[in-house]
Amino acid sequence: MKTILILGAGLSSRRLISYLEEEAKIHHWTIRVGDRDMETVREKVSYPTQAFEFDIQNSLQLAKEVDSATLVISMLPARFHPLVAQACLKSNKSMLTASYESPEIRLMEREVQEKGLFFLNEIGLDPGIDHMSAMQVIERIRNDGHTLTGFESFTGGLVAPESDNNPWHYKFTWNPTNVVLAGWPGPAQFIQCGKIKYIPYSRLFRRIEYMDIEGFGRFEGYANRDSLKYIEKYRLQGVPTVYRGTLRRPGFSKAWDIFVQLGATDNSYVMQNSENMTHREFINSFLYYHPTDSVEVKLYRAFHIDQDSPLIEMLEWLGIFSNEKVGVKDGSPAKILEAILMKKWKLMEHDKDMVVMWHKFNYVDCKSGDEVELTSSMGIIGEEHGNTAMALTVGLPLGIAASLYLQDRIKLTGVFIPIIKEIYEPVLEELKKLGIVFREKVIEKNH
Amino acid sequence: MKTILILGAGLSSRRLISYLEEEAKIHHWTIRVGDRDMETVREKVSYPTQAFEFDIQNSLQLAKEVDSATLVISMLPARFHPLVAQACLKSNKSMLTASYESPEIRLMEREVQEKGLFFLNEIGLDPGIDHMSAMQVIERIRNDGHTLTGFESFTGGLVAPESDNNPWHYKFTWNPTNVVLAGWPGPAQFIQCGKIKYIPYSRLFRRIEYMDIEGFGRFEGYANRDSLKYIEKYRLQGVPTVYRGTLRRPGFSKAWDIFVQLGATDNSYVMQNSENMTHREFINSFLYYHPTDSVEVKLYRAFHIDQDSPLIEMLEWLGIFSNEKVGVKDGSPAKILEAILMKKWKLMEHDKDMVVMWHKFNYVDCKSGDEVELTSSMGIIGEEHGNTAMALTVGLPLGIAASLYLQDRIKLTGVFIPIIKEIYEPVLEELKKLGIVFREKVIEKNH
Repeated sequence: MKTILILGAGLSSRRLISYLEEEAKIHHWTIRVGDRDMETVREKVSYPTQAFEFDIQNSLQLAKEVDSATLVISMLPARFHPLVAQACLKSNKSMLTASYESPEIRLMEREVQEKGLFFLNEIGLDPGIDHMSAMQVIERIRNDGHTLTGFESFTGGLVAPESDNNPWHYKFTWNPTNVVLAGWPGPAQFIQCGKIKYIPYSRLFRRIEYMDIEGFGRFEGYANRDSLKYIEKYRLQGVPTVYRGTLRRPGFSKAWDIFVQLGATDNSYVMQNSENMTHREFINSFLYYHPTDSVEVKLYRAFHIDQDSPLIEMLEWLGIFSNEKVGVKDGSPAKILEAILMKKWKLMEHDKDMVVMWHKFNYVDCKSGDEVELTSSMGIIGEEHGNTAMALTVGLPLGIAASLYLQDRIKLTGVFIPIIKEIYEPVLEELKKLGIVFREKVIEKNH
Repeated sequence: MKTILILGAGLSSRRLISYLEEEAKIHHWTIRVGDRDMETVREKVSYPTQAFEFDIQNSLQLAKEVDSATLVISMLPARFHPLVAQACLKSNKSMLTASYESPEIRLMEREVQEKGLFFLNEIGLDPGIDHMSAMQVIERIRNDGHTLTGFESFTGGLVAPESDNNPWHYKFTWNPTNVVLAGWPGPAQFIQCGKIKYIPYSRLFRRIEYMDIEGFGRFEGYANRDSLKYIEKYRLQGVPTVYRGTLRRPGFSKAWDIFVQLGATDNSYVMQNSENMTHREFINSFLYYHPTDSVEVKLYRAFHIDQDSPLIEMLEWLGIFSNEKVGVKDGSPAKILEAILMKKWKLMEHDKDMVVMWHKFNYVDCKSGDEVELTSSMGIIGEEHGNTAMALTVGLPLGIAASLYLQDRIKLTGVFIPIIKEIYEPVLEELKKLGIVFREKVIEKNH
């Protein structure tokens, strides 16, 4: 009897577990889920899944658990993956994660191959579904003989329209620290029409693109840190435009830029006396001194914000001018800003989130010579009580890949990310059945 | 017979050597000057000063030279000072430098005291003359019983008006790397009216002050990195405003900010293919792609620069749009920008430079209760052929302190910077005789 070992039962493992429980029923597999907090596991598993208390620092326990498993899925923080991978190598077990492939794991490739194992990383949402949905179209365009001239790809995790009660049209649906530090300290690098472009952090949120996603409305996108590494990843050498970015609702970036320009997203130093600082004092510490002007007036003057600008509602709604304590000890500006934002942007028990992904492929049709623009997009609305679209889209690809591997429908040996047909075709097919569908739209531009 | 050992004969030691040669004649001292390049020494010394080839890596030579000296002046790059200091400790010799006191040298304090030696650092221009001229006024205000409420201090090294042939009114008169990286990556920290203020790098060159320096015209100043450390240095605890900055001619900061906003002063990453890049391509790599617009048009649009703006002349004068190669291998943006600027901002053989310093002290008069504003300023125009105001103002305080020490007119034991009366009074007095004079101006503001 095959046993799936899941290490870590945090936010993103809820749908992974429920999906694998259904699969396990059909295929008669056993599932064991370990987390350092038993409560966290218990509220996510159903009979007959086995829950246990797990401590990654306990190497004996790790070896014992891996030994009795057939396949290991690590949902632990990414820094622990190499530890789990070592235990898998020792015990000849295959392993899956939704995290970026680390150099440590890349170095294990030969041993993984020699032992006939399968290590698959980056099989979540982003990285994960982004790789698979993009590579499927890229390969199709190439197999049809067309010439790819541009690839752009944007992903976003936002609040769903039905739970959207704020002028930013945003809530934290994932790690808030990563959201506050997005792009910091820069620059963003990408290639456009054959030229490498650099956007410094201080301009990042001013150089945005707009796009419509059918059924989900209008979005804007700012550039991710490093699009250049995807040239090698996706074998796009010679493609003149490669650009990846993050999706937000229109207006977000212009308002966020105020925090960037203030210096409120800096994570390089600790502010004095942050423990006793109020929201208002935090903002004021970045503004010029004036004997009588209010903090509000100074901020609006410094950034030339008109009285009727929507930025005013956005900033005031966040409570950045309040006399509430920030409640952060020895905080960097970014840490303090995160604490202020958490008070307003926390996804509540009854809130629903939303995941959107949008790709654009430009190519020259090999028969007509026409320039074609093809977009492919996907959107998912989550459910309440932690059944988020984020947990769904991170967990399902992992669960599907695990099931396919245990069914011998993926027969690969080595260290992989899901950019090859043998992985992305069956995973995407199963995702489609589960409602994660990409819609394509073609615009032909005649010469 | 007393011997002064000068290690390093770079740009800033010319006036130091000539001053000490005059003093040596009067007091019958010997001077020995060592540098790894004999040519560099020879062109700066006159008979009977002894020139020799010196290699700081040669510890035997260092020990021998220090052994036969009475006092050591290190003009080497700052990272070598601890080596020289160790040799001085071993051989019971006193030592002077114009560099910031390093933690390594601070740690030597007890041994320096036990051996009855005198280690004096920060005795150049900035640090040096800034400390002395400010402390003299601060102490006077305090001794008169007044309450200091604010201290601001700005220094600048620029091109002299008679050699000013460019719309930036600036040339490199000191380390160009430090000029390009001024304030990067930020933030600038200071205290204003009792509140600690932080300016992020991206706003640094937009928050400037203006000041007039009698006989030298109008200047602007931007904040230095860390003004807070001067609170302890100058014993200004409780003084509500402490601000230090750098002087430029009006208009410089606004234009420089274009490079900051472009990301052209970033020193954190290497640009691809910088070796074959032209000035124009360098600038273009920070701008959005456009199929037909010129690099000039894209830059002016991105920064909302009007057709009649003086910024256009400033940017074009620098040659940033030329098709000349930048000629830098594996360069960061900052390194490449420095190379481009060097082609225009290099101080030529027949150029004269200028050093300006401006302090502002605010205090409440203990008798009248009036708020008083006192400014104290100094300006020096250099001479041609490397006899710069910069070399003069760095070298003279060092030379004067060395002479005073050898004459027993400074009798101190320990590790110092020149913020105490026993040092700054006699040094400033001698500087005044040599033409380095501060002029004061008082404005009383009645309640």
